[in-house]
Amino acid sequence: MTELPESKVDVLIIGAGPAGLMLALWLSRLGVKTRIVDKRTAKVYSGQADGFQVRSLEILDSFGVAERVWKEANRMLEVSFWNPDENGTIQRSAKSVNTIPGLSRFTESVLHQGRIEQFFIDGIRASCPSNETPLKVERMVIPTSLEIDEAAAEDPDPEAHPVTVTLRHLTEEEATPTQMLSNLSDGIFRSNLAEDDVAGILDRSKGREARDEVVRAKYVVGCDGAHSWTRKALGKEFEMKGESTDAIWGVMDIVPITDFPDIRFRTMIQNTAGALMIIPRENRMVRLYIQLKEVSAGGGRVDRSQITPEIIFKSAQRIFSPYKLEYHYCDWWTAYQIGQRTGDHFSKLNRVFLAGDAVHTHSPKAGQGMNISMQDSYNLGWKIGLACKNILPRDVLSTYELERKKIAKDLIAFDGKFSKLFTGAPPKDIQSETGVSDDVFQKAFHTSRMFTTGVGVNYQPTVLVAKEADADPETEDDIPNTLTKSAAKSTQSLATNCKLGQRFPSYKVIRQSDARLWELHHKLPSNGRFRLVVFGGDISQPAQRDTVNALGAWLSSYLPKLPTIALGPASDPHSGLIKFKTDADPSIVDVVLVHSAPRDEVDLLRDVHEAYHPFDSKLGWDYDKVFSDGKTFYEEPERAYEKYGIDSGKGAVVGLRPDGYVGLVTPVGHDGVDQIQKWFDGIFQRS
Amino acid sequence: MTELPESKVDVLIIGAGPAGLMLALWLSRLGVKTRIVDKRTAKVYSGQADGFQVRSLEILDSFGVAERVWKEANRMLEVSFWNPDENGTIQRSAKSVNTIPGLSRFTESVLHQGRIEQFFIDGIRASCPSNETPLKVERMVIPTSLEIDEAAAEDPDPEAHPVTVTLRHLTEEEATPTQMLSNLSDGIFRSNLAEDDVAGILDRSKGREARDEVVRAKYVVGCDGAHSWTRKALGKEFEMKGESTDAIWGVMDIVPITDFPDIRFRTMIQNTAGALMIIPRENRMVRLYIQLKEVSAGGGRVDRSQITPEIIFKSAQRIFSPYKLEYHYCDWWTAYQIGQRTGDHFSKLNRVFLAGDAVHTHSPKAGQGMNISMQDSYNLGWKIGLACKNILPRDVLSTYELERKKIAKDLIAFDGKFSKLFTGAPPKDIQSETGVSDDVFQKAFHTSRMFTTGVGVNYQPTVLVAKEADADPETEDDIPNTLTKSAAKSTQSLATNCKLGQRFPSYKVIRQSDARLWELHHKLPSNGRFRLVVFGGDISQPAQRDTVNALGAWLSSYLPKLPTIALGPASDPHSGLIKFKTDADPSIVDVVLVHSAPRDEVDLLRDVHEAYHPFDSKLGWDYDKVFSDGKTFYEEPERAYEKYGIDSGKGAVVGLRPDGYVGLVTPVGHDGVDQIQKWFDGIFQRS
Repeated sequence: MTELPESKVDVLIIGAGPAGLMLALWLSRLGVKTRIVDKRTAKVYSGQADGFQVRSLEILDSFGVAERVWKEANRMLEVSFWNPDENGTIQRSAKSVNTIPGLSRFTESVLHQGRIEQFFIDGIRASCPSNETPLKVERMVIPTSLEIDEAAAEDPDPEAHPVTVTLRHLTEEEATPTQMLSNLSDGIFRSNLAEDDVAGILDRSKGREARDEVVRAKYVVGCDGAHSWTRKALGKEFEMKGESTDAIWGVMDIVPITDFPDIRFRTMIQNTAGALMIIPRENRMVRLYIQLKEVSAGGGRVDRSQITPEIIFKSAQRIFSPYKLEYHYCDWWTAYQIGQRTGDHFSKLNRVFLAGDAVHTHSPKAGQGMNISMQDSYNLGWKIGLACKNILPRDVLSTYELERKKIAKDLIAFDGKFSKLFTGAPPKDIQSETGVSDDVFQKAFHTSRMFTTGVGVNYQPTVLVAKEADADPETEDDIPNTLTKSAAKSTQSLATNCKLGQRFPSYKVIRQSDARLWELHHKLPSNGRFRLVVFGGDISQPAQRDTVNALGAWLSSYLPKLPTIALGPASDPHSGLIKFKTDADPSIVDVVLVHSAPRDEVDLLRDVHEAYHPFDSKLGWDYDKVFSDGKTFYEEPERAYEKYGIDSGKGAVVGLRPDGYVGLVTPVGHDGVDQIQKWFDGIFQRS
Repeated sequence: MTELPESKVDVLIIGAGPAGLMLALWLSRLGVKTRIVDKRTAKVYSGQADGFQVRSLEILDSFGVAERVWKEANRMLEVSFWNPDENGTIQRSAKSVNTIPGLSRFTESVLHQGRIEQFFIDGIRASCPSNETPLKVERMVIPTSLEIDEAAAEDPDPEAHPVTVTLRHLTEEEATPTQMLSNLSDGIFRSNLAEDDVAGILDRSKGREARDEVVRAKYVVGCDGAHSWTRKALGKEFEMKGESTDAIWGVMDIVPITDFPDIRFRTMIQNTAGALMIIPRENRMVRLYIQLKEVSAGGGRVDRSQITPEIIFKSAQRIFSPYKLEYHYCDWWTAYQIGQRTGDHFSKLNRVFLAGDAVHTHSPKAGQGMNISMQDSYNLGWKIGLACKNILPRDVLSTYELERKKIAKDLIAFDGKFSKLFTGAPPKDIQSETGVSDDVFQKAFHTSRMFTTGVGVNYQPTVLVAKEADADPETEDDIPNTLTKSAAKSTQSLATNCKLGQRFPSYKVIRQSDARLWELHHKLPSNGRFRLVVFGGDISQPAQRDTVNALGAWLSSYLPKLPTIALGPASDPHSGLIKFKTDADPSIVDVVLVHSAPRDEVDLLRDVHEAYHPFDSKLGWDYDKVFSDGKTFYEEPERAYEKYGIDSGKGAVVGLRPDGYVGLVTPVGHDGVDQIQKWFDGIFQRS
């Protein structure tokens, strides 16, 4: 047996769907040596996941890759509910708002998965310095073994590579599934009704060792979907648990020809013939989720031959009746069995992690799957990346499982409830407890929205999130004793809409130097930096100005004690071209000042401490760090202080993690300085 | 002598700067067979033109290529004026708005010419069907002869190719100017102080006939700059006339290190040491326009060796005093002599045209050059394109010279006045008539804004613009008798802010089918189609609805008599992916309905005539043609009717040319039908 070729990498990502690509994007932005492999021959060209929730769009925007989604996607602004009237004929019972107004600059949107995969790849390419080779997805590659050197796993040396994976490079023939995605004769490929095909692939490729290689990695992340090979490789205690119902639903992406009036709105129809949801899409298409009453899993797996596009479409026509429904173009179809599963462990020894469908599966109707998956690896990416760069101690990695397992559990609980409601017969049909009244259904829909948008996520108190002493105990449920809490204590009341553990919202502020209005999120891109957003209050008042400048003076002496971070080409994606480099790498902590004084009464260089407009010997002062809340010649006042829930006189300091979640809220003055130091010391200075 | 290779093309464009590329983009969108050649080896990498006026951004947006400019460019929102105080020390005398608020969704912006050239090239590529080869700029190609077969020039056969051009393909060595742009030792390359280098290039490449070819074209357009070879080839009567002053100005693009407070605002400084303008740019740079008092053309050409970056920068430092100015990075520099020239003829036999700097040159300070040049070829592109496609009769081409020559004359008049004002000493300095008071200067600046934004452009009445019988005679000055006026007569008072001859403004309207808010411009892209924007008024009132539907019924019988137009891949750039094609090519006239009824009281399929939601046998009804003015769950009411100056009860019909200029304003009812028919018959049915 010949020796296999061996190499080292910081992070090996298995699976190049949205979860894997989000992680690859994060790591490429941080300049961490990464490989990403996928068993498939190509990215997804149609169908699959399609719903973008507002938090996902905010996250994509933080990398500068949301614009194209936002442009190409279909936005779902209103939702319509249809039920049978007293004669059994469906009629519109309500039409209402789909995304909570004011929650975000984005709304729920729909675009097929292949496009976002392309945007990720473009975003990864943009991260790469021009003299290096950008990270590429290595397709037709499958792992065949995974081992963790348990002794080395806890090695504090950041150069330890305790995970060993063998990879097999497949031929195109081996990697092509027997039924291709574009083949409408089997739309169930990739559905949860399909069997895993990895065993078959391995079988076909056996005995060709020349195309195997060994990779030693600091970290391995399995983003390899519901049939996750990585999860199986980690052992029995990683198995997902949960339940499946007998309910089978069909899905079709068609260009509809119909006289149904609400065909371009998100619509829930509950007819006596069954339930159906319309998701209007890009490209004149709609996706229909169609209850298949005549097919059932009957306790076991369903007979797949029973499910054809003809049968699914006939069900849709019955539910649409008396409206007509026809189509000429069908882009994709599939079917799935409703069920919810999740695992107890998201990581092994904080060296191998699972993300996305590999640790939670559920039904697709609420448009959550791709979103929660991307948000998993968005949570993990900066932690692994900064650990690899020796900026964060390794134990911060424990917060991944803590923070995301709770979301997965919430997700499957939500999905179980939502699916049952949806599949319940309309009350018209039978006067029994299985009927779901339109009113109950609508109510459940609306109360679920904070969860479904992804904005409701609230992370537990840890070293990363310094909640108040008497923080809501509900959020502290699962915190293991091993994970240190922050020594800092926040004062939530200073910034009532910057909720500790939740994502910092974005409102518009005016750049002091040139009067341009900016979404504050666009000044807080995902580039690995923590942030202090200093809401300085009314700095036209001498006392307040002195307080803000005293904080500036302290920051000037404290920040140099913290690590620095090298920033790559796309680290400030909303500011246009970056052509000229600063003298030195900036601090891991970025400082942004937002004051509430009249803009004309502030002179940036004269009135404000240099901590808020750092000087570079080649580039001069930085004019991009001071913003004001007020009005311009062009826009109405944005009232950012009011929206952030901050007193416009005294202000507040809000500390943000690199993923934009609020970790600290504290006063601008002396006590704030104390808390800031405690918070950062707790994160960076532990040993 | 061997026979030269010969080929045919519809349009040959000479010069691939902004004017040539805009024309190439138009023609590629229209699917017209085009070639574009340029003598240079590469596009511009730094410096050159940089100002984007709001109308230019609207035009770029109509092709879907403004987004990247708008993202990367620096926006200039406020303008600051500095003058000496009684002690001779400069101080801020005023700060005010730079672009008229509410005029457009864009504001004046700055980005170097190389980026927009790239965006044009990307936009051209996006126009191309996937099975064809996209139009490419053929670089290092120079024309050596041009002949028009005058007898064939008036041939009404759309397949006539009466223009013959010989092209020479250069080697890299031949095409490279002796001093390269990036070589800071001679920043005057491409300045109007530089000599034309075509003669030298031809000289060097003499006697290599093997690399020559002959092209027969329907049309040739010279976009080849101030030294235009095409203009010279057309003969003496095409020479530009005008005057030069002795004033020399320097230009530097630097990353400034300065304590001057307004360095990120557009700023005019008039110090006793001279005048200076700050244009803040992308990439932390500013452009400085610096009066060079110690250098003068002295009636003739200036001695170029006198002009160095050191001398220019020293002047800048003196004008900035007492503020400090230093720099480490200089991206580009040049100098120019102030002067204004334009030609009497913009076309020969409507077969060869000149556009951009080839027919008007002036000083760059008001950021007009690139804009007027792009707007020239934007005016010309659809006319040539639709003539090539035999949709428009050839005599429409006469409107190019009529419409654009007036703009060129306005431009040089404006520039002469503006430059003089700017170069005039501040009143502090001398109490003579050469001093320009700050007040006079500011006033001139503000009154010029409707012109400088490009929004003030008002085209004369012709067959394309059916003005009122008593239209402003001032706008009719230069109309030749040979050019037919429209038989239609507009009623301007029906839509007071849709001014005949001016660009149709954009306000937001709500799509009836899915409640999404759209800039109306985004539904009127540049794809060659004329438009009827039917402001249908309150169609919840039966009488008004009947009127609107009667118009719809008439359109359904009239429009099929007009030509159709094939639409390519990027013809609807704001609607995302277009994957599925309609049965047949659509009419040359697009119809869009904007009503003012409450949205919930209108059912698209039931209430509105099919002319406003055309049916396709494979794609069903078109849900993208009916909009309402009102409110949504997410936004405040947009009050579009009010902004367009249209009565929300009765409405109005606004007819638009393919370039978005208003050609007709008429009632929705019977009389409107008459005028619509007269207008379109006048355009399409002449023989």
